[in-house]
Amino acid sequence: MKSALPKVLHKIAGLPLVAHVANAAQNAGAGDLALVVGHGGEKLRSAAESFAPEAEIFEQRQRLGTAHAVLAARKALERGHDDVLVMFGDTPLIDADALTTARIRLAEGAAVVVLGFRAANPSGYGRLIEKDGQLIAIREDKDASEDERRITFCNSGLMAIAGKHALDLLDAVGNANAKGEYYLTDIVEIAGGKGLEVVATEASFESALGINNRAELAEAEAIWQKRRRRDFMMAGVTLIAPDTVFFSHDTLIEADALVEPNVWFGPGVHVASGATIRAFSHLEGAKVASGAEVGPFARLRPGTDLKEKAKVGNFCEVKKAVVEKGAKVNHLTYIGDAHIGAGANIGAGTITCNYDGYSKFLTEIGEGAFIGSNSSLVAPVSIGNGAYVASGSVITENVPDDALAFGRARQKTLPDKARVLRARRAEAAKK
Amino acid sequence: MKSALPKVLHKIAGLPLVAHVANAAQNAGAGDLALVVGHGGEKLRSAAESFAPEAEIFEQRQRLGTAHAVLAARKALERGHDDVLVMFGDTPLIDADALTTARIRLAEGAAVVVLGFRAANPSGYGRLIEKDGQLIAIREDKDASEDERRITFCNSGLMAIAGKHALDLLDAVGNANAKGEYYLTDIVEIAGGKGLEVVATEASFESALGINNRAELAEAEAIWQKRRRRDFMMAGVTLIAPDTVFFSHDTLIEADALVEPNVWFGPGVHVASGATIRAFSHLEGAKVASGAEVGPFARLRPGTDLKEKAKVGNFCEVKKAVVEKGAKVNHLTYIGDAHIGAGANIGAGTITCNYDGYSKFLTEIGEGAFIGSNSSLVAPVSIGNGAYVASGSVITENVPDDALAFGRARQKTLPDKARVLRARRAEAAKK
Amino acid sequence: MKSALPKVLHKIAGLPLVAHVANAAQNAGAGDLALVVGHGGEKLRSAAESFAPEAEIFEQRQRLGTAHAVLAARKALERGHDDVLVMFGDTPLIDADALTTARIRLAEGAAVVVLGFRAANPSGYGRLIEKDGQLIAIREDKDASEDERRITFCNSGLMAIAGKHALDLLDAVGNANAKGEYYLTDIVEIAGGKGLEVVATEASFESALGINNRAELAEAEAIWQKRRRRDFMMAGVTLIAPDTVFFSHDTLIEADALVEPNVWFGPGVHVASGATIRAFSHLEGAKVASGAEVGPFARLRPGTDLKEKAKVGNFCEVKKAVVEKGAKVNHLTYIGDAHIGAGANIGAGTITCNYDGYSKFLTEIGEGAFIGSNSSLVAPVSIGNGAYVASGSVITENVPDDALAFGRARQKTLPDKARVLRARRAEAAKK
Repeated sequence: MKSALPKVLHKIAGLPLVAHVANAAQNAGAGDLALVVGHGGEKLRSAAESFAPEAEIFEQRQRLGTAHAVLAARKALERGHDDVLVMFGDTPLIDADALTTARIRLAEGAAVVVLGFRAANPSGYGRLIEKDGQLIAIREDKDASEDERRITFCNSGLMAIAGKHALDLLDAVGNANAKGEYYLTDIVEIAGGKGLEVVATEASFESALGINNRAELAEAEAIWQKRRRRDFMMAGVTLIAPDTVFFSHDTLIEADALVEPNVWFGPGVHVASGATIRAFSHLEGAKVASGAEVGPFARLRPGTDLKEKAKVGNFCEVKKAVVEKGAKVNHLTYIGDAHIGAGANIGAGTITCNYDGYSKFLTEIGEGAFIGSNSSLVAPVSIGNGAYVASGSVITENVPDDALAFGRARQKTLPDKARVLRARRAEAAKK
Repeated sequence: MKSALPKVLHKIAGLPLVAHVANAAQNAGAGDLALVVGHGGEKLRSAAESFAPEAEIFEQRQRLGTAHAVLAARKALERGHDDVLVMFGDTPLIDADALTTARIRLAEGAAVVVLGFRAANPSGYGRLIEKDGQLIAIREDKDASEDERRITFCNSGLMAIAGKHALDLLDAVGNANAKGEYYLTDIVEIAGGKGLEVVATEASFESALGINNRAELAEAEAIWQKRRRRDFMMAGVTLIAPDTVFFSHDTLIEADALVEPNVWFGPGVHVASGATIRAFSHLEGAKVASGAEVGPFARLRPGTDLKEKAKVGNFCEVKKAVVEKGAKVNHLTYIGDAHIGAGANIGAGTITCNYDGYSKFLTEIGEGAFIGSNSSLVAPVSIGNGAYVASGSVITENVPDDALAFGRARQKTLPDKARVLRARRAEAAKK
Repeated sequence: MKSALPKVLHKIAGLPLVAHVANAAQNAGAGDLALVVGHGGEKLRSAAESFAPEAEIFEQRQRLGTAHAVLAARKALERGHDDVLVMFGDTPLIDADALTTARIRLAEGAAVVVLGFRAANPSGYGRLIEKDGQLIAIREDKDASEDERRITFCNSGLMAIAGKHALDLLDAVGNANAKGEYYLTDIVEIAGGKGLEVVATEASFESALGINNRAELAEAEAIWQKRRRRDFMMAGVTLIAPDTVFFSHDTLIEADALVEPNVWFGPGVHVASGATIRAFSHLEGAKVASGAEVGPFARLRPGTDLKEKAKVGNFCEVKKAVVEKGAKVNHLTYIGDAHIGAGANIGAGTITCNYDGYSKFLTEIGEGAFIGSNSSLVAPVSIGNGAYVASGSVITENVPDDALAFGRARQKTLPDKARVLRARRAEAAKK
């Protein structure tokens, strides 16, 4: 990856690769999670606290192969489980369905289930050699015979092992090979040799997609986004140009919401039915209620809560603020740490001055209040219900309900002065 | 569609599906339009007033099949027409050329012309069975023989019927079938049985694309946009990244205009030759003259009229405003309900305060005027030719030609006070 | 192209087509550049001054064929060169590798090397007829035999000629053909007739892509962008959605930089490792240091220099300004002609009023200074280290270190007045 960040912490849809894998395992019913990290995997360990706090973390001190890596979690294996799913942190698109299918095969009696995929061009992949419905070997590309090379059913590396056989099989793996490593794939033949049932099940090509560079990372992101867009559309969300809309892993959008082109959904967004997100909008940690309208060119930051029919328009930023029913924040405005009452109208260029260099303070704006354009509301400050702030005002004191507040200088006009200055300039320029 | 909105009112390029169909019919020379709506099609009826005010609307009270639907318009059919085109409201990409071809076949003597399309994978479509240049049957997929299944020429459902035969043929359709419905496709065999000429003509695959969910809606939008982008490029418009530019059904752009990536054209936009629309711009109801420049990050709303070499720059919103030749609105500005004279310069952060909470008012800015940054122009107000407004002013009274106007407080500076406050804060924080 | 601009001056990645060609030649080691322009190619001549100031420019007064065009540069040819590369101004994707390969063949003894490409559908292209490793003819599509038509190796038009043979071969070209023109391709048979070695080498299909309309221009731009995106990703740059990011010919981005979707890089941008460019950003002529963050919705214009961990956020425009380490310009701000000290905090809606209608002036903001929201800093002005400007101030005089400055009017509040005005309005509306 040419990166200071461990590969499995690179993100898709805002979530680390390994968290996608953990989610898939949990969606397939996995109870306990064991995470095997490399020597000194401190970044991974601390990241896991947020995406899988319940995971047990094991360190593989030496890199002696995939079976050796799995055995780093020996303590977890010793506690005994019905099924053991072995997954890789860099195959984020693995879907829970494929894992569930594997678990069903275990339940039906298999000791080992290998997840395979069909490759149009299988060259380079290990081939799954089957006979009479049993998987008898996984053949590396370089070791494959002419006939075996024609097999398009390939090894994804993912495996499900019956819990009662797992340790025995893993411990039986040897390292008598060129690299002196312990290969997980060896358990296929070991289990077969013991007369246990070993089978392969088919997963999608994408499921097995491993990430090895940023081009593959972008490819996986694209596949993830494409799937999610289709899901939303089939559920009744209108996406005018789906390819230009980007979702996070946890984005929620209800049926009959409309999303125009070029919208970015960061984490924690919920858009209700009947809401409209217009072009060039950027949302994170925000709720948008029915009939509310966002954008174009709007940015909603965490803690934004737009109630029914509220509007946030162009070049507006909102954070930690409730915008009540029907209130309007339409033009070039910054609303931070605020509560805006129902039906209030916030004029163009309004700024809530929420930060004094030390702390953040609240601005409260009452129902039906009118804030004139280009006003500065210096928090903490409260504008009453039905109050009116004149354009261009700096408001530093509370304004009672129904009061009118000014905070601007009186205009002075000097006749002909602009002409005089212009002439003086022109003269100066000549010299 | 999983929608509260009737399917045919969902939009492509800003126009309802059914309006695209109506336009295609009219472009193919159709004189009268009859619209058959389902029971209680009130939304459709009222929408039709805007996209096809001249259409006659008929209600199909029971859903008894396609021939029954057409006969809901019996009154229109009885008035007599040369040709009858039967189209569906959910096939928005039908092109006028295909319809014109069908009309020519009618003029040449055919009684019924069925529009077909070639499908790479025809499975699921009705097949057009031809013999000696005549269409002898439309065979449903499930009823097709092994041989017929290999036919790739499929029924789009669209049909042209000679006016003089239309009612006779439609009335002859029976409902002796499993569902007890009246199928329009039956008239192929009925007409054939009467010795009338029945033929099939080929339309493009896209022409017949029916919309049944939002993924197909997005697909049709994508096809529409792709066609339009190509048309514009071949006509001499530069699109640096065509896939990121979205047009409305009525967008007009002249040759040698330049459009950068990520631009949205809403309805009613006209861009003249030699104009430049920069990245991340959003235009609706706006005129952009030759040499004018818009964006990046500009929003033009309805009623914007940029004259020659005018500029509207980043984070600027303009609505209902004329910006005369060479005037500049370049940075973080809101211009609404205004007239800006030639060569005027509007400073960064300027706001026309056009709304007082009750009504909208006009701002007039004279030729060559200079509006200092962060000024508020409280409308109604007029700034004279060559006048100068100092930065940060709130202007509430008219400024005569060549005058200089201030509307800001005098600065007070308290030495060392910031340090003192900082120290006090730091102390408070310790406690 | 349907354009007032000469075709070869249309741009890809911000650089004229012909400049891409000149760059490829220079990257392949070409020492002297000769540019043959059509009659009155004044626009091209003046453009060349910027992209290839060292090129010698020749005018082809009459359009008498490709060999005639090359001979327009006779003076340059007469000076003698090892190799002569003949390239076209409208094939911008030619890569230096293909040219280098051709030069190697010359060095190995060939007199003429023709660059060919493989076409899936060669119809319409001239075919390269080879025999025993020699190129014996270039056959136009219309003159090709049935067998020759099956050849998929096609003529790109590009050629490398051994310097010592170049003039002789070119002078031997005649015009005894239907159009009376001198065709460069004729030298293949001429050289063969003289017993010289003539060979074809293979370049990529894209290398030979000629631009004849704006759709092809957009296609070439897309190919160029796709190549560059992949190069950046393989070098360790994260592009979440590569298809939505647009680079200029000279964009530099270091490994472990992160670029979110929808970013436009104009010319002259350098992004350091560990910097983040968020969605919807637009950069030109800017430097972004490690740990700095830009966007979403930020615009950096030429002369912007963001130091380590500096931030420029939404709806902010910066030009000709240094933003020192850790300084923040986060919301709806215009910074032009300024220097912002380390750790300074610029409040939302701040405007540097850098232009007085005649000249531009500087704003200096000290280390750790705090500029309250919605302030106007009227340049030339300097705000000292640790100084504090109150929100909504207009600052016209320098503020010393650690001082506190105000420049705003005192608030006046009229109780109940908003209610009275509202009632009066409502009454007026009734009448």
